[in-house]
Amino acid sequence: MPLVQVTMLEGRTADQKRKIAQRITDAMVEEAGARREAIMVAFHEVSKESYASGGVLMVDKQPK
Amino acid sequence: MPLVQVTMLEGRTADQKRKIAQRITDAMVEEAGARREAIMVAFHEVSKESYASGGVLMVDKQPK
Amino acid sequence: MPLVQVTMLEGRTADQKRKIAQRITDAMVEEAGARREAIMVAFHEVSKESYASGGVLMVDKQPK
Amino acid sequence: MPLVQVTMLEGRTADQKRKIAQRITDAMVEEAGARREAIMVAFHEVSKESYASGGVLMVDKQPK
Amino acid sequence: MPLVQVTMLEGRTADQKRKIAQRITDAMVEEAGARREAIMVAFHEVSKESYASGGVLMVDKQPK
Amino acid sequence: MPLVQVTMLEGRTADQKRKIAQRITDAMVEEAGARREAIMVAFHEVSKESYASGGVLMVDKQPK
Repeated sequence: MPLVQVTMLEGRTADQKRKIAQRITDAMVEEAGARREAIMVAFHEVSKESYASGGVLMVDKQPK
Repeated sequence: MPLVQVTMLEGRTADQKRKIAQRITDAMVEEAGARREAIMVAFHEVSKESYASGGVLMVDKQPK
Repeated sequence: MPLVQVTMLEGRTADQKRKIAQRITDAMVEEAGARREAIMVAFHEVSKESYASGGVLMVDKQPK
Repeated sequence: MPLVQVTMLEGRTADQKRKIAQRITDAMVEEAGARREAIMVAFHEVSKESYASGGVLMVDKQPK
Repeated sequence: MPLVQVTMLEGRTADQKRKIAQRITDAMVEEAGARREAIMVAFHEVSKESYASGGVLMVDKQPK
Repeated sequence: MPLVQVTMLEGRTADQKRKIAQRITDAMVEEAGARREAIMVAFHEVSKESYASGGVLMVDKQPK
């Protein structure tokens, strides 16, 4: 009964989350032998002010 | 010093969360021997677009 | 489809975890209206070297 | 910079985790537009005594 | 590649989160030997209705 | 009452975790105005087979 929690920046569409949830679920069924119905995927979406890498908030990073 | 994190669909009232927090805390005190003051409960509420089971977003499921 | 994650010090017995899981699940069914079969509870157990409160590891605390 | 945390029963091989991590990462790159190098996947593996669904520990369930 | 998740009451400013992320990242680099670029910090902010200690929601506590 | 969860590769000493917990707690007190006694820090340590970045398990990466 795997559960998968995805933390990412807010702004993805429902359709993007739909496809990610499908593909993660497929991977857990096919590679881990999990029962499909038992797999849960939750998205925790955070703002650019609430996410940092390398000690720098996303809101402070220069676009590349 | 247990900490309990509850991920669930948004939409529960404060009173529902109040009762859930009380009962979870009681269970941790009575069954695990934890000190009441040291127990924390946090609710992470997600939308129907951010929660999937069986690979299907809640927003795409038929009501039963 | 709530999921509940409990982080606590290692050392509880299976029977303690059994009762905690039952009571948390009952609380989610009765107070949040969740379907029983859809509720997952996971215990993440950490050692006294991996848990701190007030900035002090559990392993460094004086017994009270 | 998505991070993906997978909680599942212990017992999967390194090769299963290798493939799951690859496929989850591919899904995040292709569907969410994330940079591959920025995606982290962590597996939290729990024992059958530390995981319950429907209020019943995995260790107490009958095999199906 | 450490990842640090901070759950706290909502209401902190971007500048407070900026400084917290910097200091946590510095601590991981200097004490754990982690590569700075590989450290992620995410803030999960919850309302006073979604956070309890000692079995009491923050919204129900008397100010001290 | 902030709670801070650190997921990192296993292998750090108790003393490293002691210092990290102290510094994270200091940062939360000084920058977020949190009460020291209410801050919890938990370390979730994973093996090189259970942690991937860029889709590659740590166990499969070449040392740099």
